[in-house]
Amino acid sequence: MKIVCSQSELLKSITTASRAIPTRTTTEILECLYIDAHSDTITVTGSDMAFTIITKVKGDIIEEGNICIHNKILSDIIRKLPEEDICIESDDSQNVFIDCLNSKFKIGGREGREYHTPNDFSEEKGFNISNYNLKEIIRKTIFSITDNDANKIMAGEHFEIEGRTLTVTALDGHRLSMVKHNLDDDYGKFDVIVVGKVLNEIAKIYAAEKEDSGEITRISVSENSIKFVNSQTTMISRMVEGKYYNINQMISGDFDTVLRINKKDFLDSIERASLLIRDTDRRPVVIGIGEESIELKITTSLGSMNEIVPVEMEGNEFVIGFNPKFIIEALRVIDEEIIEVKLVNSKAPMKIESSDGSYLYLILPVNIGA
Amino acid sequence: MKIVCSQSELLKSITTASRAIPTRTTTEILECLYIDAHSDTITVTGSDMAFTIITKVKGDIIEEGNICIHNKILSDIIRKLPEEDICIESDDSQNVFIDCLNSKFKIGGREGREYHTPNDFSEEKGFNISNYNLKEIIRKTIFSITDNDANKIMAGEHFEIEGRTLTVTALDGHRLSMVKHNLDDDYGKFDVIVVGKVLNEIAKIYAAEKEDSGEITRISVSENSIKFVNSQTTMISRMVEGKYYNINQMISGDFDTVLRINKKDFLDSIERASLLIRDTDRRPVVIGIGEESIELKITTSLGSMNEIVPVEMEGNEFVIGFNPKFIIEALRVIDEEIIEVKLVNSKAPMKIESSDGSYLYLILPVNIGA
Repeated sequence: MKIVCSQSELLKSITTASRAIPTRTTTEILECLYIDAHSDTITVTGSDMAFTIITKVKGDIIEEGNICIHNKILSDIIRKLPEEDICIESDDSQNVFIDCLNSKFKIGGREGREYHTPNDFSEEKGFNISNYNLKEIIRKTIFSITDNDANKIMAGEHFEIEGRTLTVTALDGHRLSMVKHNLDDDYGKFDVIVVGKVLNEIAKIYAAEKEDSGEITRISVSENSIKFVNSQTTMISRMVEGKYYNINQMISGDFDTVLRINKKDFLDSIERASLLIRDTDRRPVVIGIGEESIELKITTSLGSMNEIVPVEMEGNEFVIGFNPKFIIEALRVIDEEIIEVKLVNSKAPMKIESSDGSYLYLILPVNIGA
Repeated sequence: MKIVCSQSELLKSITTASRAIPTRTTTEILECLYIDAHSDTITVTGSDMAFTIITKVKGDIIEEGNICIHNKILSDIIRKLPEEDICIESDDSQNVFIDCLNSKFKIGGREGREYHTPNDFSEEKGFNISNYNLKEIIRKTIFSITDNDANKIMAGEHFEIEGRTLTVTALDGHRLSMVKHNLDDDYGKFDVIVVGKVLNEIAKIYAAEKEDSGEITRISVSENSIKFVNSQTTMISRMVEGKYYNINQMISGDFDTVLRINKKDFLDSIERASLLIRDTDRRPVVIGIGEESIELKITTSLGSMNEIVPVEMEGNEFVIGFNPKFIIEALRVIDEEIIEVKLVNSKAPMKIESSDGSYLYLILPVNIGA
C-alpha cells in the first residue's frame, strides 16, 4: 500500500477513528488502526469489535492495499509532523514507512487481513437528523444512564420515533431524562436502544458541530446493528437487546405544586450545598418549599449550609430531600433562564419540564426521615 | 473574629496562600489556612512549616481575632459564592460562619494559637527585581533541578549577585541551565541556594504578571531564611544549606564546532524522535553533524526515525548522542528564532548560549558506542 494525504486530513480521520479503540485490551490487533486504500477510496478504521468507526480520508492512492498500524504510535507521529503532505507506505514484511519533508519514520505494522471489519449491513429502516441536533440530544440526556455495565438497558438510551417525533430517554433508577425533537419527515415507527458509550463518542466527534452547518447524519438499523453515517464517517454499533421501560406512568400524574425559579440561582445554590458532601458522608440536600421562596439546607460532618432562593409557587408547602448531584446534572444542560419545577409531595419525584415539551427531567427524592 | 471582604479579594488571597499548603500531610493544622485580623490588617497564611505564604486582604475588621479553617473547604465555598461581600465570623467554640447574600455556611475551625507563624526576620541583605523578570528567570531554569529530594543542593537553584549582575543556575548532573540578569542597582555580593519547590510556587503565583506591570519583589536573606516580599504577599522559606557547585570550569573551554540552527525546526525534529521512546526502552537520539545539515536518528523497539535539519556549521563533522528530553526542555524556553549550538567532540557537552550572555544551557552527551 502507498498513499499520500495531507497531515490535517490524516490527523482528523485518525482522531475520529481512534475513538472506537478500547483504552484497555489484551487483543493487540484492537490497538491498531486499519488503513485501507482501494477503488479511489482511502479509509481509516478503529474498532473495539462491538463499535466500529470508519472514516474517509482525501488523498492519492499510489498503490492499493491495506495495513494495521498501532494507533498510539501512528497518532503521535502524525500529530507531530508539519502541515504538509505525508506518504504512508507498507512493504510485504509489514514495515510501514512514513515520510514527510525531511522526516522519515519506519515502524512495524500488522497484516490488514488480521483486522475484523463489520459484516454487511442491510438497512431495514432509518431517519435523518442534523449532526448538531444529535449532539445536543445526547448532551441533554446521557448523564442519566447508569455506569453499571451489568444493566445493559439502563446503560443505553432509548431512541423512539412516532411519525415526525423523536423521543430520546435515559434513566438509571434514580432519575430520568427525556428530550423530544421534531424530525424533517414522517419516519413511521422506530424503537431501539443504543449503547451509551457509543453515543458519548459520537457527541465527542460532533463536539465542534454548529447549528447552521447543515451536516446530516443518517441513523439506520439492520437486524442487530445500528449505523450512523455522515459525509465522512460511518459508525456501526451492536444494538442493546431487550425492551425499554414503559415510562409513561412514571412521568404522568398530578404534579400539583409548581415552582417558577431562576435556573442559575437554583443551580448555584445546590452546587454550594454539595460542597459539604464527601464520598464517605453522602447526605441529601433538604428543600423546604414556601410560598415566596425555597430554603435549601444540608448538614454533614464538615458543617452546614442554608440558603434562601426566591420562587413563585402554586400548591402546597412541604419539605423534600434530594441527592444534589441529580438536580445539578439536569440544571446544567437546561438553557432556559426560568424553569418550572413540579412536585407532588415529599415521597414523589420532582419533574422539571419545558412548556413546549422539548425536555423533561424526573428526579426521585430521598428519604429524610421525620 | 469578624471580617467583611469582597469575594474576589478573598478568593485571590486564599488561592495564593494555599500554594504553601502541603498536598499530603498527617499534621491536620497544616491543612488549614490561618486568617488573622488585627490593627486594620487582614492576612491569610498558608504553610508547610518550611515555606510560608502570608497575603494581605482588603476588607473591614468588625472584630479582631484569628482562626484556622480547613483550606479545601474554605476555598471551595469562597469560589462558589457570588461576587459580593462575604462575612467570615468565628465564635469562642471555633465555629466559623460564612455569610453572603442569602447563603449561610457554618463549618468547624481550629484555634488560631494552634498555628505556627514564622519567627521574626531581620534582613541581612537583599535586592529588588520585577515580578515578571523573577518569573521568567525561574521558567528558564527550573526544569534543570533534580526531583530527587536526597540532594538538596541539586533540588535548589543558585542565586548569585556580583554588583549589578544576578546569575541563576540549576543543574542535575546531566545538564545545567543558567540565566544572567541585569539588576537596577549594585547590590554587592549575594550567594544563596533557594528550594526549587518554592521557586515553582512563586512562578505560579506570578504566572499572570506582565512585563510592564511595574510590580517589584524584594528578595532578602537573614541567617537561615529567604524572604520574597511584594505589595500584597510575603513568602518565607528556609534556605538550602551548603556551598553550590563551582560551575565555571564546566561552562568554559574551547567549543570549536558551532551550529547555527532554526530553533523551531530543531525542536520539532527532536520532539518527533522522542515519540519512539517508551519508559521501558530509553534510547538516545543520535545527531550526525555535517557541513550543511545535521541528521537526527533514533532506533527503538517501536521503530526508527531519521530526519535532516539544515544548519550553518563551522568546525568538525562527528556523531554524538543525547537524551532528547534534555534538549527539548532547553529549546522550549528559548525565545530566539535562530540559536547557536556549540560542541567539542562526541564525549563533551553541548552548549546552547545566547550571544548577549543572557542564557546558557549545557547538556551532557550519552555514550552511543562505536
